Order: sequence, then structure tokens, then C-alpha cells
Amino acid sequence: MNLNPIQLFDTESSTFTYILTAPGSNQAVIIDPVDHQLERDLRHLERLGLQLALVLETHAHADHVTSAGRLRALTGAQAAVPSGCGIAPAELQLNDGDVLRFGYAEEIRVLHTPGHTAGSMSYLWRGNVFTGDTLLIDGCGRTDFQSGSSDALYDSVTGKLFALPDDTRVWPAHDYKGQAVSTIGWEKRHNARLANRSREDFRILMSELKLAKPKLIDIAVPANQNLGLPHGA
Amino acid sequence: MNLNPIQLFDTESSTFTYILTAPGSNQAVIIDPVDHQLERDLRHLERLGLQLALVLETHAHADHVTSAGRLRALTGAQAAVPSGCGIAPAELQLNDGDVLRFGYAEEIRVLHTPGHTAGSMSYLWRGNVFTGDTLLIDGCGRTDFQSGSSDALYDSVTGKLFALPDDTRVWPAHDYKGQAVSTIGWEKRHNARLANRSREDFRILMSELKLAKPKLIDIAVPANQNLGLPHGA
Ligand SMILES: [Fe+2]
Ligand SMILES: [Fe+2]
Repeated sequence: MNLNPIQLFDTESSTFTYILTAPGSNQAVIIDPVDHQLERDLRHLERLGLQLALVLETHAHADHVTSAGRLRALTGAQAAVPSGCGIAPAELQLNDGDVLRFGYAEEIRVLHTPGHTAGSMSYLWRGNVFTGDTLLIDGCGRTDFQSGSSDALYDSVTGKLFALPDDTRVWPAHDYKGQAVSTIGWEKRHNARLANRSREDFRILMSELKLAKPKLIDIAVPANQNLGLPHGA
Repeated sequence: MNLNPIQLFDTESSTFTYILTAPGSNQAVIIDPVDHQLERDLRHLERLGLQLALVLETHAHADHVTSAGRLRALTGAQAAVPSGCGIAPAELQLNDGDVLRFGYAEEIRVLHTPGHTAGSMSYLWRGNVFTGDTLLIDGCGRTDFQSGSSDALYDSVTGKLFALPDDTRVWPAHDYKGQAVSTIGWEKRHNARLANRSREDFRILMSELKLAKPKLIDIAVPANQNLGLPHGA
């Protein structure tokens, strides 16, 4: 049965943070928390009477800094990250096919979906997939830095994500157009970059985007590889 | 069992719109849709494969215009509104205690919670309460226009909403501080305006707010009393 997450939005970086809650327990999971939203996120946990079990990252972000390290310290949660992202201080280094558990009987399945970065993971839970920057609503993440690869992203989306049931809800790490959620079925048929497009077409499309370098990348990536904590902390 | 709604935010008016979905059916309900977000909302219904059963209003808003009339026309949904708000063209005029049904076996219970306006309703569904402008996160709606009454709001919140189970999730019609959801238990203990405050204290507090008249009120209220449709339409 589909349970919607609680979706929070950071207007500065257009980042979605998700809080997962489930029946029979007050344990919660947070996905991709943002450093300057730490207070907001803690207040949600407090108001909802939630105990944070896991802080999950979809990848080492280039556009904002995570609050994972501070959330872990403040709540006692474990940090779970893709093993291929160089996020050394996290205790749970995830690989494709791993299953994370929380609450009474909740399972989060780990899906390796490289392309935006080589390590990027998607997370499956209760009819939802949290796709990070691999698959966005009517779009996808860039593939031109940080070990990105348009070939790998093409395979991850068309081979792995589009193989999920059509009614799986897609919750991305970002949206820039005021949209909140989509489905695998819709993206498979309509995604402007990936629906009905050949690998070669997609490679050309991505190579021609000519995107600016993210302002924060030189600070954010090393910071995120340390869970957002000052180095040495 | 608590099912979270899908929560959408309009930055212009700081209004939350909610889409309710449930197991076993593709029927959905939308609460407090905003006129200029019609496209966004229709796209969510399309992407999620939802059929809109009901358009619900919590009250006749003064700060934005509803898209209820157009959504009804475009989707075939029924419009359900508080009977005391003068929203004449809606087919379902709701009274305290009414139950709305959608999907396989979903029930929405109607709770008359006057104070922000005389007709204001809250809606209870699956461990959630949609409080409109009656109860906000750590605040409440104003009571100084549109048949508002601080006495009535005090009774609605402390007598009716605070009587709900502590873990009931509170989804308001607005938030101005980046917060998304709260609980009855937290608001009962911590709400800055209403927790542990006497009726007389609350009356004084509300009378001293000296809020500006909402810019859109003279347009929005008559428009919303016609479900956002042009008069004569
Ligand atoms: Fe990214
Ligand atoms: Fe209002």
C-alpha cells in the first residue's frame, strides 16, 4: 500500500527533503536533509513525536550541504549513504539490493542508479521511489561532472527505474517548476529527456546542455563527503 | 492508520493545497486549490492517474481565489463547501458532523470550526485534520473580518480541535515560516496563541494584532463565493 512521505522544500536550493513515517512505530527516516533547514527538520520531528532512525543520502550533492552529520549527532540516528560516493564517516555504506529497516516492519530497498554521479542511489519504499537527481519530474539530473555519465544515467532510468510498476510514485531530490510528485508510468511515457529516446539521442542532448558550474560545488562536495560536518570534526 | 496527503504550496499566497489519495481506488480529493495553480494541480492528477471526486473548501478565502469551479468543470468532481460560507454554486453544502466518502472506503468527517470565519470547517481523514485558517502551526487565523470572532475561534480550537487524539496530524491552509505539518498534541501544549491561554487573554491578544486589510479581500471573497468562476458564468 502506498504511504506518502512528508515532503519539505528548501527554496534556496530547490531541494526536497523527505520524512518517512509508518504505522505502528514512531521511528522515522529522513532523506537528503539540507544544512540550513536543520531547525525546520528538528521541529517537524519534535512536533510529530518522531524518533529519527536513519539519515539517508541519495548522493554527494554539489548544490547544497547536508545536515546529515548534525542530525545524526542530535538524534542518535544512523547515517546511510551510497558506498560509491566517498562519504566516509557514514556507518552504513549501501550497495545495490541492500534493504534498510525501520519502524515496525518497514523496508527500504536500495537501488544503484548511477549517471548523475557514479554512486547515486534510489530508494524504494511502499510504492514510492526516491530518485535523487537521477530522475526528476519531466527531466533528469545533469551528467557532466562528479563522475557523471549520460550512458549510465540512460541505463539507470530506462533499465531500472522504468522497470518499476507504473503507479510507483516518483519523489525527486529537486524540482524547479513547482511540481511535487510524479509516477514511473507517466515519466516512462512523457519525460522530456528520457521517454522514447534512443541512447545516442540522449547522449547528444546531455552533451549539448552547456550548464554552468554549480556555485557551491567546490565547497559542497567535500563537505557532503563528511556528512556536512567541519573537516576534523 | 495515518495516510499523509500530498501537500502542495503556492508561494504567492503561502497557501497549502492538499491532494488526498487512498488504497484500492484512483479517486482523489483536493482541498483549497488556488486559481493560478490550476495547471500544477491538473498535472499532478494526470501524472498520478487520479480521478478527482471532490473539491473541498475550508472557507471563503480572502487572500487568494479558488480554482474549485474550474476544477469541477474540467474533472467532473463535485464541489463541497461549508454551508455557512455563502458559496452558492457548490452542490454539497456541508454541516457539522457530515461525512464525505470517496475511493474504496474513505471517510472525511466534517467539523464546524468557526472563528476565522463563521462558516469555517475542518476536515478529518485518516488521522489527519485539515484545519484551514482556524488552527495554523504555532498560530491561528485572524478573527477581525469576514464574520470572524476570537471567542468562536477559541472554542473551536480548544473545545473541538484540541479534543482530537494528540497524534492527529495538523495540516493548515497556510504557513509563513517554512513549516509543513504539526500535531494536535504539540499545538495543545505549545501553540503560541492558544496553548494554556485563557479566553480573555486570547481575546485581548487577537484584538491587538492590528493587521492590514488583505489586498485581495474585496475581489477574492465574492469570487470564492462563486467557486472562483466569473459571475454570470
Ligand atoms: Fe546532485
Ligand atoms: Fe482565510
